[in-house]
This record gives sequence, structure tokens and C-alpha cells, in this order.
Amino acid sequence: MKKDIFSPKSIAIVGASVNQKGIGSVLLQNLINDGYEGNIYLVNPKYEEILGRKSYPDILSIEDSIDQVCIAIPSQAVEPVVDQCIEKKVKSIVIISAGFKEVGADGRDLENRIKDKVKAAGIRLLGPNCLGYINNEDRINLTFARKNPGNGSIAFISQSGAFCTAILDMAIAENLGFSHVISIGNKADIYENELIEQFEKDPQIDEIAIYLEQFTDGKEFVSLAQKSKKPIVVIAPGSSQKAKEAISSHTGSLASSHETVITALKKGNCIVVDSTEELFDTMKFVKNKKFPNGKNISVITNAGGPGVIAADNIEKEGLSLSNLSDNSKKKLYENLPEASAKGNPIDVLGDALADRYESAISTCIKDEGTDSILVILTPQLITDIVGTAEKIIKLQENTNKPIFACFLGKEDVSLGIDLLKKYNVYVSNNIESTVKLIRKITEYSVNRNKNKVVEVSDIKISNKYLKEIEDLITDEVSILPDIISENLLKEHNIPIPDQLITSNIDEAIVFAATKFPVVIKATSKDLAHKTDFKAIYLDIRTVTEFQEKLRLLRESITKVTRIASPDILIQEMIEPKVEFFLGANREGDSQIYEENGNGFGHLLAIGQGGIYTEVYKDIEYVLLPANREDILKSLDRTKVSKIIDGYRGKPKLAKDKLLDIISNIQSLLISYPQIVSMDINPIILTEDRAVAVDVKIYVKN
Amino acid sequence: MKKDIFSPKSIAIVGASVNQKGIGSVLLQNLINDGYEGNIYLVNPKYEEILGRKSYPDILSIEDSIDQVCIAIPSQAVEPVVDQCIEKKVKSIVIISAGFKEVGADGRDLENRIKDKVKAAGIRLLGPNCLGYINNEDRINLTFARKNPGNGSIAFISQSGAFCTAILDMAIAENLGFSHVISIGNKADIYENELIEQFEKDPQIDEIAIYLEQFTDGKEFVSLAQKSKKPIVVIAPGSSQKAKEAISSHTGSLASSHETVITALKKGNCIVVDSTEELFDTMKFVKNKKFPNGKNISVITNAGGPGVIAADNIEKEGLSLSNLSDNSKKKLYENLPEASAKGNPIDVLGDALADRYESAISTCIKDEGTDSILVILTPQLITDIVGTAEKIIKLQENTNKPIFACFLGKEDVSLGIDLLKKYNVYVSNNIESTVKLIRKITEYSVNRNKNKVVEVSDIKISNKYLKEIEDLITDEVSILPDIISENLLKEHNIPIPDQLITSNIDEAIVFAATKFPVVIKATSKDLAHKTDFKAIYLDIRTVTEFQEKLRLLRESITKVTRIASPDILIQEMIEPKVEFFLGANREGDSQIYEENGNGFGHLLAIGQGGIYTEVYKDIEYVLLPANREDILKSLDRTKVSKIIDGYRGKPKLAKDKLLDIISNIQSLLISYPQIVSMDINPIILTEDRAVAVDVKIYVKN
Repeated sequence: MKKDIFSPKSIAIVGASVNQKGIGSVLLQNLINDGYEGNIYLVNPKYEEILGRKSYPDILSIEDSIDQVCIAIPSQAVEPVVDQCIEKKVKSIVIISAGFKEVGADGRDLENRIKDKVKAAGIRLLGPNCLGYINNEDRINLTFARKNPGNGSIAFISQSGAFCTAILDMAIAENLGFSHVISIGNKADIYENELIEQFEKDPQIDEIAIYLEQFTDGKEFVSLAQKSKKPIVVIAPGSSQKAKEAISSHTGSLASSHETVITALKKGNCIVVDSTEELFDTMKFVKNKKFPNGKNISVITNAGGPGVIAADNIEKEGLSLSNLSDNSKKKLYENLPEASAKGNPIDVLGDALADRYESAISTCIKDEGTDSILVILTPQLITDIVGTAEKIIKLQENTNKPIFACFLGKEDVSLGIDLLKKYNVYVSNNIESTVKLIRKITEYSVNRNKNKVVEVSDIKISNKYLKEIEDLITDEVSILPDIISENLLKEHNIPIPDQLITSNIDEAIVFAATKFPVVIKATSKDLAHKTDFKAIYLDIRTVTEFQEKLRLLRESITKVTRIASPDILIQEMIEPKVEFFLGANREGDSQIYEENGNGFGHLLAIGQGGIYTEVYKDIEYVLLPANREDILKSLDRTKVSKIIDGYRGKPKLAKDKLLDIISNIQSLLISYPQIVSMDINPIILTEDRAVAVDVKIYVKN
Repeated sequence: MKKDIFSPKSIAIVGASVNQKGIGSVLLQNLINDGYEGNIYLVNPKYEEILGRKSYPDILSIEDSIDQVCIAIPSQAVEPVVDQCIEKKVKSIVIISAGFKEVGADGRDLENRIKDKVKAAGIRLLGPNCLGYINNEDRINLTFARKNPGNGSIAFISQSGAFCTAILDMAIAENLGFSHVISIGNKADIYENELIEQFEKDPQIDEIAIYLEQFTDGKEFVSLAQKSKKPIVVIAPGSSQKAKEAISSHTGSLASSHETVITALKKGNCIVVDSTEELFDTMKFVKNKKFPNGKNISVITNAGGPGVIAADNIEKEGLSLSNLSDNSKKKLYENLPEASAKGNPIDVLGDALADRYESAISTCIKDEGTDSILVILTPQLITDIVGTAEKIIKLQENTNKPIFACFLGKEDVSLGIDLLKKYNVYVSNNIESTVKLIRKITEYSVNRNKNKVVEVSDIKISNKYLKEIEDLITDEVSILPDIISENLLKEHNIPIPDQLITSNIDEAIVFAATKFPVVIKATSKDLAHKTDFKAIYLDIRTVTEFQEKLRLLRESITKVTRIASPDILIQEMIEPKVEFFLGANREGDSQIYEENGNGFGHLLAIGQGGIYTEVYKDIEYVLLPANREDILKSLDRTKVSKIIDGYRGKPKLAKDKLLDIISNIQSLLISYPQIVSMDINPIILTEDRAVAVDVKIYVKN
């Protein structure tokens, strides 16, 4: 995208009026008040003049050429204006108006027509249904926001205009500036990814913040985020869909859309925040560019209780209290009074003045085992609130080790808090949210530059059954016959039990006799009919027993399917040490891995299998493509991995073979993007085997 | 406790000086400035006069009688002053000075001596190591705090003086008053429970807030809290000990001290908060006495995004979006514009003025399925921030249904926020923390008046093996021999497998032959020696196999214990449908259930058993004594209860019999308070049986 979309030399506003509080007029006033230096044209057929400026009846009657047209009129009237813009050959259009795809089918049709027209004309479009944009680098405020907090090093992209207004209002109070605020609205054309690309190149921008409800192309987003040199802070609401989807009885659906988003954001090493306050705290902190190198925190406090609260939260967030070096402890003994605590938290005592804080913080800055410093202050009788703030500011200036200040209270501590804010030192009066922030910042910092970008093209493709799959695929979900599933698994070296699918009783007996103990069950296709019949018999040890169970099973299936001689699946029985589970869901259509495919790709869900899968939800996710290391990391995050690694004296299980299966499932899925979902439950693990036992594969366009 | 301890007619301050910033002088100034009307005496042998008042050389030289003496001098000098107080027959003493048990053995000895002396003299003592107290009902501020926010309906008790200072500082900014602020410090005498009793009776007090690091008598606290008519808000830090204790390989220790505290607070229906901000928000909200009757929330917003964030958090906290009645929906259709969303969240649109909010809130107030109303406002172009706040205030005045306001932003919304605060309507700019608060308030509200207080005396006692237990008990933990454990279980009707403990091989074979399949294992006593030998053989089906396995097991045990013919435990083998776990830990000594016993009693930990117990930590807690209903509630909170209740077509298991076991374990533990911990893993559950299989019982004084 050419940068000049947000730097037009001239702007026409369609919809300005003599009503100074109307959206069009506010757009005009914001543009003028914030110093726009280009030409402004007003369009409104009702007036000859608006607020002392000439008003044109329409776009075409403007004699000069126009870079950008901003439309703020009712949606029904927008299309003819767009037509004029095309005729006028403007470079870009901003549609502020609401009333498009967000209101239903008619609005969607209107939006699509406009989208197609501007695309054909080579005109870029922001919106519709948006607040407009601010480009403070070039002094352009084309929004109807109440306030503009001014220039800064943060670029903010928001899918919600209202959210922008709240953020802008907070930013003013917090004295935080933005290079750009772009309200992308319905994203008919301009969308998040191209903005990220643009901001990535802009040297005035240090961080990118995004509020996003839907990702236009998740795969591309992840790739951009992985390569980004700038922190990307994201608030992505919508997790309440998760529960609804998780209710589905099909375990593959545990890999829900929300989980895909969260996994994608993690893969892109984005800093994910949950609330406006957290977004704000994070943006402010990141601006300083002082990041922890690890998860060890030293806490300095003038009161025991808040120190305990900090320690609690540090543990809760999976961070650690740093082990101070002997040298650091020695310095603390030299410089702090006898009664103070020199462990961690370091208690400088209730009568501490700024000098004790200074000395303790200096020691922690030099301490090699300390990655972050958390300074807690309670406003006790002689506490030097402002003096302590001044020392913190000076110390933070001269070190890259981040200092987080928590000044508890509100009235007396406000002078200290205001001073710290003025000098961009992180300060809060909430220990819990501060420690949560430290955790998120630490995760970001530790993982950045570690992202090894894996491309789909790095994955080995093998798809000799493509023809069979393509013959089965439709716009509805359909299940693959077991025999095709088996072929796909074998093609990708995924071990399955010794098994035979047959409708021939004699063949079945001969096979079973060499494999006892065995399991017999109905095939997936027949199971799909399942009402409530017994479809599996385990641990069959003799021919007599086999004949009896086979008869019962065949009868049950025949009753349900009306097939006289149904296929039966006979498998060797393997006693599991752990039952593992693998589900996969495709986000996007079957063209997802092609150049123009939109979506995220396949998400794998892995974790404990068997009856407890949905009870404990011990599930971690892998967004494809991923390398073996990424897969291992996800596997190690499952709780069941403790058992796999050999828990409390039990033997280790075949983890490498499990990893092989997961890797091979990846090549299978990318080889056959027609697979819309897949479910292996269980993968049976023993000391020396990992075997995919119950496999169901579904395909769809 | 007589109320007049905090309403003395006269106070002597020991430690005032001409240094106006000294603690003693600040105490004096606070006392005078906040309007104390009694007599004040100053004691300091260094001066004849302090700040224009006479200074006495010591307590005994004061001619009048004195109600209360406040001591603020170095700890080493405190004891002689206390001696004088006793001689002078003062009624109470407040020791501000630090340097007692918190600094180690010498301090502890000094504190104990003083404690014993005042107790013998019948004098009550607050502190040492505290901030003092404020009784705003009687205009007494005997603290060295910087500020006093003035009178109010909240009583605040704090074990941390520094924490008080932060709370007082916040209270001033938030315009929140306290009837009492009591800093209990080291609690040498006056402690939390008697203050709760006192505040419970004080008609000017509506709620009690407590910061507490250690509970002096947890059992008594729970009993008081269960009977309390006033909400008790508690912040109890210290959870980081939890992890350390959970690491212990003995599963009984999962019932750690921290879990006991949390379970106790839940049992007492206290509102537990995690941070100073949350404490504050809760205190402010509770003050209004408008509580939700259930967990259904209606959300009203002028922006879609924040509505989604609210819905996410409502789900995350286990609350629900209310289903609006048809009548309510009809009203919304009548009163809101066409484009607005009439579902829940109700989107009144970005151009909403106060009237749309008013109409939507009124509808939700009348809606029967709505228990709480969450009103979200973003400061959009024409949003009427103050007008909307005014409507909310008026509506909240006339309904008992609670309204929670979230005004997002900071600068422009501040006028609305300030107004709401002024009229005590809950307001925040953080959706996440607001929804968390609603959840906690709802839990409190729904459970209050539902507490059925169970007393230890309600539990049936049966202890015919008391003599045997007492013979074994020492100050060290010791394990009961299996045969005694078996007797205790049988006495309390707890089913165990058919089993035999014998060292006689022939006897073993005869028993096994009638029970195949069987299990054989080493006895608990021998297992205590366990290094790494195979101590259990499962699923033995024939005499030949039995003889072989028995030989191997005996050899292993003999090798470890050097007993030639060791005891062997032979059990019928029961195939589990679920393995359950029960652990118990006693908090307090073996006199815990007697009149003077301090502590919490036994905590039961129940949940999934087997190898996954410590992996999934699917554990819930029951603090004894509890009735069957309480036990059932805890059981139903475990995830494994889904399986027990019959999951996805599987049969239901013997839940009633499991409940019987847990209830009977309760009577066993209260009958034998010598049991310091206990571990049953697994309790095997089938469709018709619940059987305690591996039982270890430990006793200690």
C-alpha cells in the first residue's frame, strides 16, 4: 500500500453541514484544528456555504483534482458518490457511514457492489462503518473523534470505532501519543495486514497496537507478526464463542476458531491483552523499549504484606523471585538497616526514605540474576513519595533493566505517580495487574528473535490418493471410508495397529487367530449411523469368544445399516500406558495453502485422550506449519506429558514416536488440504510404540 | 470484648517528643486534630513540656487514673512501661513499637513476657507492631497514619499497618469512610475474631473488611463468619506457599495450609479479594446493599466491541447473559432505533443519548430474568456522558437490582465517573475487573442465609480403638499398621476389598483361591521402607501364578526389611470405572476439636485418583465439620464427577456410596483427632460399589 493514502494532498468531505455537531462538520473541524495543510473541499447540495467555506453540490463540480474523498452521509446515498469519485479519478475514499454489511443482507450487497467498483477502478477504500483515521505524522485528523492525543511512536489499528474513542480519551489523560489511529471498520478493502506492513517500515513507529474482532487473513497475519521487528499488542475479543463450540460432542471441534486465534497470536509472538486498561499499560510500557531478559523478578517494598501479595502473584503467573547473588546480598547488608529483610522480597522497612530504595534498586540493577525490578511503596508516615519517584526515574534512565513501580494508595501517592508517568516509568497502584503485565512482557521479550519462520513450502508433500479424495469432496462435510484413511496414514508413515477390514467371517477368524488378544468394531462409516448399539468388543482371547462376539457385532450393525454382511474392523489389542488424542480443524477453505487462500490453515489439538479428553481438556494447540521443536513445546505444555516423560518412577513412553506421528499428520494435512477435520482418539502410547487407533477423517471444499 | 477498649475516656502517649514528625507526636496530633474529647497525657522523661502540653516523666507520675496507654518507644524500653501500666491499673494498652516476635527469638520472648503480664493483670493489649486504631464513631484517631478518611459504615481490620496506610490513602481519594480501622499487628492479645464479634453487634457498621496473613483460630473464624449478618470482605495473601507444599510427593499434603484458608473463607461465605483495588471496589459496592439474586447479567452498551469483551468475561467468570423476556424485548423494540441490537448485549448504538440508556436500563430493571445490569459507555461524538450518569443514579436509587457502570476512557468520561462515585453507584473503566466483582458479589449474595452451620458436636463419635491409637501417638508423625487402619475403617462402615493380611503361605493360597482375580502387595509398614522394589502384583488368576508372584514379592520384601516371613496383603481385584482419591490433613494439634483448640480442624481433599491425581490436580476441598450436602457440592465441583454421573452414555457409578465413604471418613477423623493425615488412593468406583483400596493413616500429637 502506498503511504500517501493516509497523506492526501487534498480532501473532499461529503456530508459536512451547517450543524456544527454533525459528523461531517466534526470531521471538518478536526481536520482544520489539528493543522491539515492540504486543500479541503466541502460537498453538500443543500448549501452554498458551510462555516464560511464554499460548498459544492457534488464531487464532479469540484474543478481541482482530489486525492481523497471522505463520505459521511446515510448509506443509501453513498453509492452514487462513489460512482462520481471513480469518474473523478480520486486516489482513495474513506466511508464513515454505517449501514453496510453489519446490518444484514441488503447492506452486504451494497458494500460488495461498492467494493467491486473501487477495486476495478484501482481506488483504495477505508471503511465503511468507521471513525476515519488520524495521521499525526502529517497532521491529518480525518475522524469524528472528540479528541486527538497528538503524535507519538505508537500506531493503533481498530476494527471498532467506539473502542478508538475510549482509547483516545484514555490517551489524553495518560499523555500518550499515536503516529496513526486507523479505524478500519468493515474492512471492505484496506485491512489490518497491509497496515502492519506499512507501519513496520515507518521509522517513526516503535510499536503497533490492534483491536481486532475478525482476522481477514490469519496465515498472512502470523507470517507478518513472526517477521516483525516491532512489538504488536493485540486485543482480540470473542472467546465466549469458545464454550459454545466446545459443547459439540465431536472432539475435533475443541480446536475452535477462538483457539486458532489465540494460537496464531502466540505463534506470531504478539502481546495479547484482555482489557482496555491492560492494553494501555502495555502500550505505555513497550514504548520505553526496556525489556526483561528472563523471568526473575526482584521485589523491593517498604511493607511486608504487599511483598507477600507480589510473591503470590509472581508464582501465579509462572514467574520467579530472583535468587540474589552473594555479592548483591552483601551490598544489601552494607546499605540497609539490620531489621530489614535482605531476601527477596527485599523489605526496606516502613521508615525507608528514598535513599534506601535507591540503594536496593541499584543493587538489583547490578544483580545478574535479576531480570525485572518491582518497586512497591506504601505511603507510610515518613515515606518520601516524590523523592523515591525521582530516584526511580534517574535509575531507570541509566539502565535497560525494566523497573515496575507500584505506589499503593491514591491521594498522597498521586504526586509520585504523576511524576513517574511524566518520565514514562511504568507505575500502577495494582500489584496483581502489574505482575500480569510483567509476565506478558517477559514472554514477548524472551521469545522475540527466536521465531523460526516455517513456511508451508518447507513441508514435504505426498498425495498419491488425491484423486480418490477429490472424488469424495463436496460442499458438505463427508467422512472418509476407513480404507482410504488407512491408505493416507500409511502413505505418511503413521503407525496403525495390525488390522483387517473384512466382511468375510473366515478371513476374519484366520486373521484374529494370529493376533490374540484382538478388538473388533464397526467401521467408521457404519458408526456414523450410530444410534446406541454396542459397536466394539475388547480383549478377545480365543476363537470361540471371537466367533460369538463377531456374530453379536454383525447382528447389531445389520440391524442399524440393513447391510446383511457388513465390514468389520479387526485390530490387535494394545494395552495403553497413556491414551493420547489428536484433533485437527481447518480454518479456511480447501484452497487455504494456495497463494490467494484466506484463513489460518489447520490447527492441531493434542492432549490426553480416552474418556477424560473432554473432562480435563488437557489440550494444547499447534498451528500449521510448525517445526518439530514447536510441536515438542506444545506437547510439553500438556499435563499428560509428565506421564509420558516417566512420572514418579514409571517408565518413559515413546515420545519420539508420538512426535513422529504429529509431524507426519502435519505433512498429511498439508498434502491433503481437503481434510476439514480429523480425529485420532486414542493414539495409544506404550514404552516402545505410538499407534493411531481410532482415526476419523472428514473432507469438505 | 468490652467496646470501651476503643473508646477510652483518657489516653496517655508514651513517646511523644518535640520532633513533630516523630511517631509519638503524630499520634498526638492525629488524636487532637480528629477531635478526641477525652484527657490526653504525654509521657517523656526528656521534656517538661511537649507542643505546649505538660510532659510526665513516667506513667506513675500522672495523678489521674488513665483508661488507655499508647506506647511508641523502642521495643527494648517497652517492658518497664508495661509494668507501670499494670501498677497504674490502666484498662488497655496499645503498643505501636516494632521489634517483637517479627524480628526473631529475642523479640518473641519479650512479646510473650508482656503478653503474660497483661493477661494476668486483666489488661487488654492491641499490637505490638501496629499502626494503632481509628474509632471514627467516637472521634478517636490513635494512629500515626497520614490521613483519616472520616466516619463510615465499614469496619476495617488489618494485620499489616502499611496496608492500612495504602487503604486510608485510597479511601480519601474515593470518599469512603470507616467506623473503625484497627491495626492488630502481632496480635499478642486482641485478635480478629473478637473484633468481628464486636463489629457484628455495632448497628453503625454494615460491613467488615479484613487483611489477614495468619488466622489465630480458624475454626472460630468460620463459625463467626457463617453466623454473620454482615458481609465480610477478606484479603488473605500467602498462596505462594501452596506450590512449595504441593511439590511434596505425599498426596495428603495437597491439602495445604493455603487451601485450608481458602476453603474456610468459602465455607464462611466471605468475599475473598486478591488486590487492594479489588478490596476497594468491593467495599464500595457492598456499602450500597444492593445485591444480585442470581447470576444473570444484562449488558447495555453503545458499542459492539466492548459488549463482546463483556460477554467474554461473563462466560469466563461462570456467569450468564440473561435471557430477556418477550415482554422486555417488545419494550426494547418499541423504544430503541431499528438498527440497535435487542439481544443481550443490548447495543443502543453510538449515537445514543441518555434517554436510550434510560429506556434500556428501565426495561432490564423490570425484566425478571435479569439479576444485574452492566452499563457500558464509550465517549463517542454525541454521547451524553453526564446525562447518562444522572439517569443511572436516579434509576439505581429506585431499584434494589444492582447496576454496574463501566465508562471507558479517562478524560472526557471523568465527569460522569465522578458523579456516579459521588452518589455511590459502582463505576469503573475496566470491564474485566467489573465482571469479576459481579461474580464474587453474586456468589456472596446467593449463598448468604443458606449456610447451615454444622458443629463438631453434630458428628457421631465412635472411637473404640482410642487406646491403641494413643499408645502409638508421639510428637512425630507415625503410620498406623494396616490392621489398625482396617479396624478403624470397619468401625466407621467404610468398605474395603475382601482382603487378608498374613505371613502364612498356605493361608494366603486358600484365601486367594476363593477370590480370583486377586492382587497381592506389601503392607503399608513395609512400603514405608520402599526403595524401589516391585511391591504389587495385579490381576492374578490362577494358583500357579499366585504362588510364583507371592514368592517374588516375599523375596523383595525380605531383601528390604530383612524379615524372613513378611506379612502380605491379598485383596480381591476390583476393576475400577473411576479411581477416586481422598486425602485429609489436620490444621492444628490433636486437641483441635476441644474447647481451647486453635486451628481449622481437618481438611479433606477429594478428586480423581490413580496416577493422574497430581498431574491434573482435579481436587476439591471440604473443611470439617460438613453436612452431606456440602460434601456433595464439593464432589460435584470435581471434574471427575462428570464421569461418576454417567458421561456421554456411560453408566452412572455408585455416587451415594462414595458420599457415604466421605461422610464416614469425617466421623472417623473427628472420632480420632489424633489422625494428622490420611490418604486413600484409590477409592475404586464401579456401577454398584465404592471401595477404599489403599489406605494410609498417620497420627501425631
